[in-house]
Amino acid sequence: MYRSNTCGELRISDVGKKVTLAGWVQRSRKLGGMTFIDLRDRYGITQLVVEADADAALVETATALGREFVIQATGTVVERASKNSKIDTGDIEIRLEAINILNKSLTPPFTIEEQSDGGEDIRAKYRYLDLRRAPLKRALELRHRIAHEVRNFLDSKGFLEIETPYLIKSTPEGARDFVVPSRMNPGQFYALPQSPQTFKQLLMVAGYDRYFQIVRCFRDEDLRADRQPEFTQIDCEMSFVEQEDVLNLFEDMMRTLFKNVLDVNIANPIPRMSWYDAMDRYGSDKPDIRFGMEIHEITSLVQGHGFGVFDSVPYVGAIAVPGAAAYTRKQTDELTEWVKRPQVGAKGLVYIKLNEDGSTKSSVDKFYSEDELRKIAAGVEANTGDLILVLCGEKRKAQTQLGVLRVEMGGRLGLRDPKVFAPLWIVDFPLLEWSEEDGRFYAMHHPFTAPKPEHLDWFYSDKKEDLERVCANAYDFVLNGNELGGGSIRIHEAAVQERMFQVLGIGKEEAEYKFGFIINAFKFGAPPHGGLAFGFDRTCALFGGQETIRDYIAFPKNNQGRDVMIDAPSKIDDVQMDELFLASTVNEENA
Amino acid sequence: MYRSNTCGELRISDVGKKVTLAGWVQRSRKLGGMTFIDLRDRYGITQLVVEADADAALVETATALGREFVIQATGTVVERASKNSKIDTGDIEIRLEAINILNKSLTPPFTIEEQSDGGEDIRAKYRYLDLRRAPLKRALELRHRIAHEVRNFLDSKGFLEIETPYLIKSTPEGARDFVVPSRMNPGQFYALPQSPQTFKQLLMVAGYDRYFQIVRCFRDEDLRADRQPEFTQIDCEMSFVEQEDVLNLFEDMMRTLFKNVLDVNIANPIPRMSWYDAMDRYGSDKPDIRFGMEIHEITSLVQGHGFGVFDSVPYVGAIAVPGAAAYTRKQTDELTEWVKRPQVGAKGLVYIKLNEDGSTKSSVDKFYSEDELRKIAAGVEANTGDLILVLCGEKRKAQTQLGVLRVEMGGRLGLRDPKVFAPLWIVDFPLLEWSEEDGRFYAMHHPFTAPKPEHLDWFYSDKKEDLERVCANAYDFVLNGNELGGGSIRIHEAAVQERMFQVLGIGKEEAEYKFGFIINAFKFGAPPHGGLAFGFDRTCALFGGQETIRDYIAFPKNNQGRDVMIDAPSKIDDVQMDELFLASTVNEENA
Repeated sequence: MYRSNTCGELRISDVGKKVTLAGWVQRSRKLGGMTFIDLRDRYGITQLVVEADADAALVETATALGREFVIQATGTVVERASKNSKIDTGDIEIRLEAINILNKSLTPPFTIEEQSDGGEDIRAKYRYLDLRRAPLKRALELRHRIAHEVRNFLDSKGFLEIETPYLIKSTPEGARDFVVPSRMNPGQFYALPQSPQTFKQLLMVAGYDRYFQIVRCFRDEDLRADRQPEFTQIDCEMSFVEQEDVLNLFEDMMRTLFKNVLDVNIANPIPRMSWYDAMDRYGSDKPDIRFGMEIHEITSLVQGHGFGVFDSVPYVGAIAVPGAAAYTRKQTDELTEWVKRPQVGAKGLVYIKLNEDGSTKSSVDKFYSEDELRKIAAGVEANTGDLILVLCGEKRKAQTQLGVLRVEMGGRLGLRDPKVFAPLWIVDFPLLEWSEEDGRFYAMHHPFTAPKPEHLDWFYSDKKEDLERVCANAYDFVLNGNELGGGSIRIHEAAVQERMFQVLGIGKEEAEYKFGFIINAFKFGAPPHGGLAFGFDRTCALFGGQETIRDYIAFPKNNQGRDVMIDAPSKIDDVQMDELFLASTVNEENA
Repeated sequence: MYRSNTCGELRISDVGKKVTLAGWVQRSRKLGGMTFIDLRDRYGITQLVVEADADAALVETATALGREFVIQATGTVVERASKNSKIDTGDIEIRLEAINILNKSLTPPFTIEEQSDGGEDIRAKYRYLDLRRAPLKRALELRHRIAHEVRNFLDSKGFLEIETPYLIKSTPEGARDFVVPSRMNPGQFYALPQSPQTFKQLLMVAGYDRYFQIVRCFRDEDLRADRQPEFTQIDCEMSFVEQEDVLNLFEDMMRTLFKNVLDVNIANPIPRMSWYDAMDRYGSDKPDIRFGMEIHEITSLVQGHGFGVFDSVPYVGAIAVPGAAAYTRKQTDELTEWVKRPQVGAKGLVYIKLNEDGSTKSSVDKFYSEDELRKIAAGVEANTGDLILVLCGEKRKAQTQLGVLRVEMGGRLGLRDPKVFAPLWIVDFPLLEWSEEDGRFYAMHHPFTAPKPEHLDWFYSDKKEDLERVCANAYDFVLNGNELGGGSIRIHEAAVQERMFQVLGIGKEEAEYKFGFIINAFKFGAPPHGGLAFGFDRTCALFGGQETIRDYIAFPKNNQGRDVMIDAPSKIDDVQMDELFLASTVNEENA
């Protein structure tokens, strides 16, 4: 062992001990003939001192140390004259007797500090240096801790972690698969799993009634910001359970995680909200309930007053932004431009100010009397000093736009504190989504999601409006405006599954081709079952108080799906292509 | 919840309770008007009874139950008249009041029993049914338990589990990579990792001084029996350690696993043996030391007696098979044929019997006197009643053949008890292997393995014989004749690494091309580090007392790398090929 102690553990009680530390030179400075070295490892920073009157060779070595040199240093723990209360080892320092340079270092291309001076690209290229920074170290330590707590919790509840294969079969629906050509089976491909969904359901058929896995998943999507082509899921499934059992168990898991990892007590019970309520009140199926500012429908209050924009739409809704009545014309104009951006997509924005002096001011003053504006304000539950923001249009679309605006205003008002954790369950999702474009229903979750037993009459109805109101036994776990997880009770009865395929317009042959082996497996005694999966990367990020996942993944890819550190993907040689019976169709100009 | 209890938990103390169980019908039989049903779930089997005088509908339902039907059954726990001591619930049965058929089942294509009547192929196709069998359930439960214990142990020692990427860069050396075409980077490919070797070394550079991961690895090899294209590793790395630190820590881990999982106390300390000793004494770098029967060199004892076969070879070795002197001519002939099989590859077999009556009998009697045979016997440490088996040839080749023969004889004599666990460390591996064919050295482990510091003079020598005797700081963990794990201290100094490439005949440009980014990373302060990896599938199998890994993997592939259950790999459609800029070069006749 190269060290007797880490750089994070020595305290005032260790004074007098002879110790050997090993680590990286964070910084080194001369002060009145003495050399001070901050030595860093995973556990902390310890100050080393070479006295002015120390051995000349030692002084010389200490003086020549560069940033990020790896050294082994031996000396005696002494009490510091000027203590540093910012670090755990700040009461002591090591008076050195020997320094052994284990490895030199080139000067790193950016500073290895809490805040680095390096840009994102250079830090990605030298990820192994960026990972030395304390924020990333804390992120990966947090990730380890959460994974460990998840496993301990689920193990204590009788769950088995069972590894499912990564080389599976390409599935013809859902997002794009990454595929893997098989050399031993020419012309054939494996696919990398988008999730272990099929396998976990097979494990239920096989009788493993409590399964989980912290597992990598792969999706070949055009990457939006903060998406990764490979990501990690906490994947779970249970048999002989109803929705209530699943919700209770994973609510318990989340509560345990928050308590054990962050020492935070989250709501007990975690609130539940129907999908319909979430859309109506928050304009989102993943509402951020850290703050109110709920959406109110005011259609009946505003129509019939001669304002054509409102009269010509099916829905008018509004939020009351607390204390924002003092917004200037410039500010409301800016907000109007903001909601008209394609990311939001509103046609315009109407505002009503409930001024502190009791007066009102609105962008539609000429259509509504002071009294009518007050009635609208009452409908939005607005108070004096609030700014009411109104959007209109098709109901769900306008609600969604109001939802985006609400979150933006919450952010501007500082109501989205990352240290506050407001989880909730979204339940009662619609089972089906009608596509106007394709003139058919699609499964909102996936075709194996069970309809609510009390909605089976509608499910077997031929009327579109009946089918549209069938709810699924599906649920999402939402935290601070992020969907952290979701799942459903699955269909386990052949007749219900057949009806589902019928509703989705999937014929017998097509069903057999696409889902044949799982349908077949279900003929041999499938138990009632259900489960869910949590996005592990985002869970870690939110626990860490961050919105972006990249720092919580040791070696992430960029928005083009590239690992710029190792420069992957890359070309492979012709021999390899030949062995795989593949030819590239890339033109030189595309490549 | 569909049940109040599992099928494994009710005891005599529960008599009188009203319970609901859910599970699969293992079997159902009529006896004097009563119907007995064995209900099975993951936790056990409980006997259900429908009395002859029960409700007629209930009797009818019970009578109609088929094998593997999924039912929910409610009734009262009663004491059994005739107890079954073979199962934990054998003291009680449930007198039923209601049966709810949750799902029917087709008749399974093979019996779901401890020993199934199904062949390997049909069980592979219906893996989800085979997984219902108790031996597979025990295997997957054991696997979960071992993984959990590994994580608890390493967590307690300050290790962080850090996930490394699965979509990485194709490496030009080692076994073949599976590759993944990138749609977003036309003409380029990711590779699936053969191991996280590079990334774990980068994590050491990044300062994460205790890393581990239970991680999937991929190798596109022509599959030998009991190899899988994807397999799982317990992958570990540490910084600021020497070989002794690594061995001690993982010895501790293994001892803890054996104790906590199997309640077995393995040797403390675990014995260590140099690679040279292992080859000389056991003819294997993974010796099975559950039994003796060591190899002895007898070259000097047998040469010069006119037996041309022995006189013309550099090495003659032998083992003494205890108590096998009574082998018949037919048996020794069969052994001779056995060693001449290509899998062993010996030219012939010489035997010497030390008969119980004190006489000797040998296949080379005409070249050796009784006295000379006794001297040979003494050299092999043989006793009266033993059968001495002699092979000869090039030293390592003959030793390897003797090693194979030794293991075979150990098996025939019942000396390889799977309940006995005899671990050992193999150390002091040669750093380099000379290839006569290529006229160059190859790294025995990999090019980053460090030479022993005390052998650095030889390492820098130009003489082949010096280089051949350089030992590596490398080690294997061997259990019962299987290599369970292995690793090494890595090179962390640029000068040593450069010399290594020079010895391996890898030029600067080639090194840069193949290992560029890791060499570059090492310039920024690489700490001394080392680690190892355990084969997790085999660890589980050996803990379970099995030699084959297939039952310890939930969804394994067959010897052609196929998952016959889901029928993967398979063809993908042309649209997908086009999106990936790929064309197949498979002729219809190859496909």
